[in-house]
Parts: sequence; structure tokens; C-alpha cells
Amino acid sequence: MSDRLTLADLNARDAAGFVDALSGLFEHSPWIPERVAGQRPFDSLTALHAAMTAAVEAAGEEGQLALLRNHPDLAGRAAVAGELTEASSGEQASAGLDSLSEDEMARFQELNGRYRERFGFPFIKAVRGADKARILAAFEGRVDTPWHRELATALHEVGKIAWLRLLSTVEPAPTGKLTTHVLDTAGGCPAARLPLALWYLDADDGATRVGDFVTNDDGRLAGPALQGADVRPGLYQWVFEAGVYFARAGHTTTATPFLDRIPLSFGISNPEAHYHVPLLLSPWSISIYRGS
Amino acid sequence: MSDRLTLADLNARDAAGFVDALSGLFEHSPWIPERVAGQRPFDSLTALHAAMTAAVEAAGEEGQLALLRNHPDLAGRAAVAGELTEASSGEQASAGLDSLSEDEMARFQELNGRYRERFGFPFIKAVRGADKARILAAFEGRVDTPWHRELATALHEVGKIAWLRLLSTVEPAPTGKLTTHVLDTAGGCPAARLPLALWYLDADDGATRVGDFVTNDDGRLAGPALQGADVRPGLYQWVFEAGVYFARAGHTTTATPFLDRIPLSFGISNPEAHYHVPLLLSPWSISIYRGS
Amino acid sequence: MSDRLTLADLNARDAAGFVDALSGLFEHSPWIPERVAGQRPFDSLTALHAAMTAAVEAAGEEGQLALLRNHPDLAGRAAVAGELTEASSGEQASAGLDSLSEDEMARFQELNGRYRERFGFPFIKAVRGADKARILAAFEGRVDTPWHRELATALHEVGKIAWLRLLSTVEPAPTGKLTTHVLDTAGGCPAARLPLALWYLDADDGATRVGDFVTNDDGRLAGPALQGADVRPGLYQWVFEAGVYFARAGHTTTATPFLDRIPLSFGISNPEAHYHVPLLLSPWSISIYRGS
Amino acid sequence: MSDRLTLADLNARDAAGFVDALSGLFEHSPWIPERVAGQRPFDSLTALHAAMTAAVEAAGEEGQLALLRNHPDLAGRAAVAGELTEASSGEQASAGLDSLSEDEMARFQELNGRYRERFGFPFIKAVRGADKARILAAFEGRVDTPWHRELATALHEVGKIAWLRLLSTVEPAPTGKLTTHVLDTAGGCPAARLPLALWYLDADDGATRVGDFVTNDDGRLAGPALQGADVRPGLYQWVFEAGVYFARAGHTTTATPFLDRIPLSFGISNPEAHYHVPLLLSPWSISIYRGS
Repeated sequence: MSDRLTLADLNARDAAGFVDALSGLFEHSPWIPERVAGQRPFDSLTALHAAMTAAVEAAGEEGQLALLRNHPDLAGRAAVAGELTEASSGEQASAGLDSLSEDEMARFQELNGRYRERFGFPFIKAVRGADKARILAAFEGRVDTPWHRELATALHEVGKIAWLRLLSTVEPAPTGKLTTHVLDTAGGCPAARLPLALWYLDADDGATRVGDFVTNDDGRLAGPALQGADVRPGLYQWVFEAGVYFARAGHTTTATPFLDRIPLSFGISNPEAHYHVPLLLSPWSISIYRGS
Repeated sequence: MSDRLTLADLNARDAAGFVDALSGLFEHSPWIPERVAGQRPFDSLTALHAAMTAAVEAAGEEGQLALLRNHPDLAGRAAVAGELTEASSGEQASAGLDSLSEDEMARFQELNGRYRERFGFPFIKAVRGADKARILAAFEGRVDTPWHRELATALHEVGKIAWLRLLSTVEPAPTGKLTTHVLDTAGGCPAARLPLALWYLDADDGATRVGDFVTNDDGRLAGPALQGADVRPGLYQWVFEAGVYFARAGHTTTATPFLDRIPLSFGISNPEAHYHVPLLLSPWSISIYRGS
Repeated sequence: MSDRLTLADLNARDAAGFVDALSGLFEHSPWIPERVAGQRPFDSLTALHAAMTAAVEAAGEEGQLALLRNHPDLAGRAAVAGELTEASSGEQASAGLDSLSEDEMARFQELNGRYRERFGFPFIKAVRGADKARILAAFEGRVDTPWHRELATALHEVGKIAWLRLLSTVEPAPTGKLTTHVLDTAGGCPAARLPLALWYLDADDGATRVGDFVTNDDGRLAGPALQGADVRPGLYQWVFEAGVYFARAGHTTTATPFLDRIPLSFGISNPEAHYHVPLLLSPWSISIYRGS
Repeated sequence: MSDRLTLADLNARDAAGFVDALSGLFEHSPWIPERVAGQRPFDSLTALHAAMTAAVEAAGEEGQLALLRNHPDLAGRAAVAGELTEASSGEQASAGLDSLSEDEMARFQELNGRYRERFGFPFIKAVRGADKARILAAFEGRVDTPWHRELATALHEVGKIAWLRLLSTVEPAPTGKLTTHVLDTAGGCPAARLPLALWYLDADDGATRVGDFVTNDDGRLAGPALQGADVRPGLYQWVFEAGVYFARAGHTTTATPFLDRIPLSFGISNPEAHYHVPLLLSPWSISIYRGS
């Protein structure tokens, strides 16, 4: 991602240059960056994205429907004919939609047809990182929802697509961090001296060990596990060595412990945000959640 | 494990044969199976183990201390000299205690010495499946505990060692099963049509896919994921395809979802028991625990 | 509620009688029961309500907006002038909207105005059981949402109002039940022999003890705590005597236990449904949720 | 509790005066404060209690058994004859043991006899705040445990009794505080602007409203709900107005919400400690636990 613009670059451009840089974010809809160019400078991708989302909201139903109708069908005629925008083409391929079986293709066409007839716009979903099962499940879940709810959902998906494209285009502000905290719910105390590792999971199922940590007396790490430019969007995995903690704390476990080494996967969508991902732990139960 | 006895075999033997079969369970202590031989028939390893545990409890402090003192030090002189029982030797090797660095060896000797001086018996821990970090953490946690608590802990570890050896010696009764249940805590309903897989994790970090399932309308599987002889003690991993469920249920997620594919590891210690391992799930939090 | 119709009565009426019975459910909108009269017999209020909701959905945006516009403002001019339907008048009074201070009244008028101008229909909320704080919070949360989301929310509130009025008009089917299950997440086992009580909380802050129970060896009650006609919509409270369980189970607690007697409140909205309301319990943590 | 000593007073006394002040903490065992007098000054009751606990541990089995045997039976002969220490007498009365029915008295005598015969010392339990059900459950749970575990449990109860008596004798250090944090596990964000109240629950079932709070944007309070001398040991109740938060956040709820006003009770045992008592909240699930 070394060829991304910086926020400073983007803020320094003239309006045409700003719009040009962001013209691919919303399918065939340069009017969206146009309407927010005057709000610069943006100090984060988060703020820039929020401004563009507000512009879409302010465009009213007519403008929103036009935006939606600029999108191609998933696995649709345009995809087959090679007529997608470059961004759309790559996204659809990453989800495996360029290699559907004949039956799968037929299922997509049938759903595309029902959906378009019911709603008057194509089915839209941010598919990077998804797979056929997730896309079909979304299709089946959404094809029968009330029209107004579905319009809101479709616009939300458009916003997610724009977010992913924005992350490929501009460097995020270095404000993000990842932290954790481990609490022992059987003992009612912090889980001190618990070793853990952090892994980054690549799209191709590879995994990179990002760091090794040990909790302090308060059950926290000495500092963020990740911060600033090191916070990349994507999939991560904590591996908590709960068995080491249980052994030191004197918690009774069975011959093969119910919980011992605990891998827990989570995703970071916004690299500018603080992800606090704590663990509540007993020898027989775990909870993990996004904290603050 | 095909050369294990059956419970029927064990129950059919004369007392001497019964004791002989189980003589390796408790270190140099055939008196323990002797005292329970008359309680046969046992219909489960669980019942047999409970009877032997009760015999140890009934033996009083003197008998218990003698039992504890029959155990070798972990990574101790006897191990170095090759004087362990076959069972102990294999257990210590499986935890990597046969290949300690000089520093690690010195640390173990120091802890062995402090522990023996304080408690009057050797440090005992069921080490199959553990590693150096877990064993050292247990050592450090236990070396300063009150004497009476530590006696109880040491006896509990003896019971765990016997359980693991018993599982290698006799086939368990086919009463066990593994089930799950997925509840949507954001929606207040069962998580229906959620695909999941079950993996068995081998000691050498390999993994075997045991089965693929989909939750029904009540968030449960059509039947047990495992039952009877298929319930092997060891480490397992559920992989819940939460992203598929969220997509169908219409739950809002971020561009890279916080939770999507969720691997959750757990151990089965008693293959005769029912392990109900349910999941509470929202797009931002998970809980897993041993249910019933 | 002894003067409610039965489902059998309702199903047996001619269409005009059916519509007449339900004409008050949706504000000035008898066309909604009219459109579902032909789907009889309904075997539950749940099914009848779902049919009417579907009729509203099928009416399209125009019909939906007309329905919304039939509602009076909350604490609005019609309320002050005494021109509400009897149902609306009682609902608004139950939430304290008939006794607002001058400042509160001004705040409602301001929000009513902003809301109407933005959305083109009045702010609608099912207010029975709510209070001024809840109604104002909803007002403030909704007045700035996107139009399409808010339309969906307003229709959902209309459905809730109709549900509450339906419960006052027709007896529910006796299919409901209330159950629980207590699991010990520190011990990894059911919480057996734990005493608990169930209370019904009246609108006037009184409380009626409905029953006393003790969990069995599986952590469950011998049967439903409530079932059939005994399942009344409203507010309930479990009181779990966790301290008794901890004492018997030998869990260590502090001199004043962190958790001991645990009251947990919850509401039953649909008396035809199964409410499974389990508790996950350790001496230092509790979770309660709607299960299945 | 205005006639309590201060820690400064206690530290300033000569050894005899120190022992005299604390002579009632451990039943007929002034040797325990004697052994720690030389460790002064103590800067907290927590440290003083830990020192005395260590002295008991260091006394060995003989000294520990003598300490245990100085205690009277619960509801025993000495109680009936009016021969208890003043402290014991008040404690037993507070748990209702001075007004047992004939059957209850017989049950206690039977358990007292079995327990003494098995363990060689009387059944000891910190009973302030407990009731007959809790005491009988503890009795039944402990009468059959292994001797070594029970010795540890009995000593732990002696420590709890001493802690409660210490709190009546000396003012705690003003280091304690009570905080909370509310997280929305359906939305993955802090629960902002959620009103809550804190109540203190008196022994006689009265309740005092201690304070009213609203969470900030991070889901926390502006400062501790209690701190310093305001942290009294005893029972508390949070009342979270979750319904207000859900309304503002736009979370969908049913006509009668499953969760709305949520009272959650907890105890503070150590007024010198930080009690962080957070809430994880969705419209269908809650978790509360002791955090840090």
C-alpha cells in the first residue's frame, strides 16, 4: 500500500484533484467527493468518510437510488462481459465470484432478478473478505426485507465499499491502537502474568506473528499491542496462554483442561480507531468483546 | 489405543488380574486398585476413578504422604539417571522435560529443592499436554501455598495422572457426547442456519476435520457432533461461521467485521461425559462455556 | 382482563365482527384487520399480529404514511384538547404525558415540530410502561436518523402499539412458558440445589411473589416456572439465592460476598412464547440472557 | 461506627495496647496480634489482616487446630447456655441462630456432632449477613470434604470473621473506590448517556439512594461513584436505566422490553479496595463482574 496518498496530500490538492483522487470510491458518482471538498481539511479518513456518508444521506431518495443503480449486479451480466470498473472487478474476484459453478451462477441470476424486481436497484454488498456462503446468505436474508429497511442496508453497504476503497487510496491517520485486558471471573481479579501472542492473518490463510506479550498485575499489557501505522485493517488473532495463568493462580483444571491455549480471532476495520479487545476468563468460560 | 482392555474384561478378571491391569496408575501403589477390586463391576471409568480417589482419601494423611513420596521429581535426578517408571518417563518427555537447557535444569532443581523442603514430598503435576511454561508456572504458584492446600492439590494431580493412564489402559464407556447451541444475544433468538465445523487437534499441531454442521431453527445441531466411541479425549476446535449467520440475519457489521469466522478451542478430558459447549454471539461479543 | 375475547370467538365472527373487534388496534385504520380477516382461523395472537404487520408492509409507502399520519402527537395539541382516541389517551397518561411541567411541554412541542418537519409524520412510540426519560431519549435519538430508517422504526412502533392493544382485547393462546437454567462458570457444572423465587412486578411498583423453586442436579427447575394462562405480559424478577449455592458448593467468597442474593429483572412481551432466561454464575460474575 | 480506632492510633500504641485493641478478632487467641505487633506501622487494614493471616499460617497445624478449637459450635451448647464471647453471640444472633425451631436446632446438633467427629474441630463460618439457609448449605457442603481441604476452609472462615471484627474496631484507610463502565455488546461501543443510580441496602431491607449518575461518551462516570470514607462495606445495588439508553441508541425492543430498568446487587467486602463493577449490555443479555 506504499503508493497511497497522505491525508496532507489530499487536503492540499485543488478541488478537482481531490475529487479525482476519490472518484473511484462511489461507483460512477464523483458528485459525492465533490460535495465534501469544501469541508477540508479532514484530519482522518473516519471524518472524511462520515462527511461523504452525510452527503449521500442529504441527496434524498432520488439521488440515493441513482447511486445504487450505478452498481453492477454481483456475478451479473456486466461481470461476465468484463464490463466492471476495475475496483468492482477485483472485489468480485476476491470473493470467488469469477469462478462460480453453473448452478451457483444460476442461483445468483435468480436472486439478482428477484431482488431487482422487488427493490428497483441491484443487490449491493461489500464482498472483500467475504465468500460465496456469506454473499448468498446476505442475498437470501435481504431479498424479502421491507423496502425501506433494505434501502438503508444497501446504502450502508455502499458506504462499506467506499471505506475499503478509501483505505486503498489514502493512508489513515496514525491514531489507532489495539489493547487488551484479561480478567479472571473465577477469582474476581486481574489475570496477571498471562502470556499471549498476536497474529495477523493474511488473506491467503497465512499468519504472521506480530508480537508476544505478558499481562501485568492489572491484567493489561505494558502498552498497546499495536499503534499508529502498525494498525493495519484486517484479521487478527490473540492466542492467550490461559493454561499458564491457571497453573500459576492455582485454579483447578481437569487432566485435559477445558480451556488452555485460547486463540481468538477478530477484525480491525478502522485503523484509526482504538480497539480494546478484552477477555473475561475462568477455567470453564470465556467472553471476548469490543470494549473501550 | 486398540490394545486397551474393555470394562467388561476388567470386571471379569480375578482380583489379582484387576490389580495387575491397573498397577501402573498410581506410582508404586497397587494398594489403591486392591482396595476397590471388591466394588466391581464398574460401569464406567468415571466410577472406577472415583472409587480409587475415595480410597486415597480414606487412606489418611500417612497413606497419602507415602503415595506422594513414591513420585519422582520432575526433571529430577531419577529422570536424568533413567530410573523412572515407563509411564513417568513418557509423560515427562511429552512435556519437553527431557530436553531442558542448563539454565532450565538449574531452575527446576532449585524449585524441586525448595518445594521438597517446605512440603516434605516431591512436586507432582500431570504434565501430558503441558509444556515447560505451564509446569514452571504451576511450580511457582504452588511452592508458597499453605501446606494443607498444597497437599490437596498434589493429591488432585495424582488423580489426574491416574486418569490419563487409565484412559490409555481401558476403553471408556460409550456414554459421552458433544453438543452445542448458538444464541444470538443481539437479536434475542437462536442463531439458525449457522454453519460450523469441528476439528480434532493432534498433539503435533496437526488438525483433523471431524465434521461439518449447520444449526437448526433452535440454534442446535440435528444430533450430537460426537458421541460414544467417537468422543476421544484431547483438544478440539469449533469453527463457527458467524459471518454467514450475521449476513442472513441482517446484522450490521463493519467493512472488515469484528467477528466473522470464529475458531474456539476446548478440551475433552472425560470421554464418558456430556460436553455441551454453547456459544453466545453478537456481532461484537462472544461467550463460550461448558453448559449442561 | 376477564372481558377479553377468545381466539375462538374472534375466529368465529363474521368479517365485520372481526374487524369491529380489532378496529382500535391501528389508529383510525380498520383496513388493516379487514385485509387479514380472510386468513382466519388464527391459532395465536402472534400469527394474527404477523399477518397484520405483513398487510402494513404490503400497503406500500403511501399506505404506510397515511397510517402514520393518523397518529396524534405525543403530548400534542390533540392530547391537550382531549381529542385523542380512548386508547391513545390512556397510553399517554400511563407514561406521565398528561402531567408535564411547562418546560417539558415546551421540549415536547419543539421536538414534535422538528420531527414532523423532517419526516412528514408525527413521532410515534409505544409508551405503555415507558416514562418521560425514555420517551425523550427516543425522541432525541430518532429526530436525526435517515428518513428510511426512521420510517421503518415508526412502523415498528405502530406494530408494538397494536400488539399491546391486541393483548388487551383478545386472550393469548396458552402456549407460553418461562424456564431457567443455572450454570456455574467457575466450576464448569450445573448449579444444583440453588433456591430461587419469581416475582411479578406491578405497574405501581408493587411486587407479587409468584413462586419458589430449587434447581435440580442439572441446574434446571422441575418444570416451567410459568406456563399457559399464567404467563402474563409484564415485568418479572428472578431472585437467585446464589449464596446458598456457593456455600454448598464450597466456593470461596469474601466476608461480604460480591454476589449473594441476585435479583434479575426482565420483561415478557409475548405471553405465547417460550422465555428461557438462564443464568451463568460464578462468585464474581453473572450473565443473563434470553435463551431458547 | 464512630467509636472506631484510627490506624494512626493503632500504630502509635505500645505493643500491649495494640494487642488489647485486637484481642477480640481471633477467638481467645491474642497470640495472633502479638506476633504482628512488631511489623507496625500498618498503612491499611488489608495489610494488617494479611500479616495476621500469615501468622496463623506460620503457626503450623498444631497452632491452627488450637485456634479452631477455641471457637464455639454454631447454635451449640455454649450458645444455648449464654457462654459465647460477646462478638460470637452477636454474630450468631444476626444470622437468626438464636431463634431456631426445635427441628432446626436438632439438625444443627446432628451436623455439629458429625462434623466434630470427622474433623476434630467445630464447624466455623463467618455468619454476619448470612441466614439459616446459607449456613446449613455450607454445613452440608463441608461435612464430607477431605480433611485437608476442610482445614484450609475453616482457617479461611476464621480469617473472614477476623476481618469483619477488624472493620468494627478500626477505621479503614481511605483508599477505596467504586467505579463502573457500561458497554453495548450489540453495538460494539460504549453505552453513553445511560442514567444509573446507586443504592446502599441496609441489613433490615431498607435501601438508601447514594447517588445518581449518567455515563459519559466512554460509558464511564465522571468520577468514582464512591471513594474514601464513603466506601462502606455492605450490600449495594446499581439500577441501570438501560431502557433510556436503548431508546436513544435506536436499539429495537419488544412492546414490553426484555431488559429495561436493571437492578444489579453486589457486595463490598474491603472498603480499602477498588471495586470496578462494569456492565456488558445488549437488549437481550447482560453481564456484570468484578473488573479492575
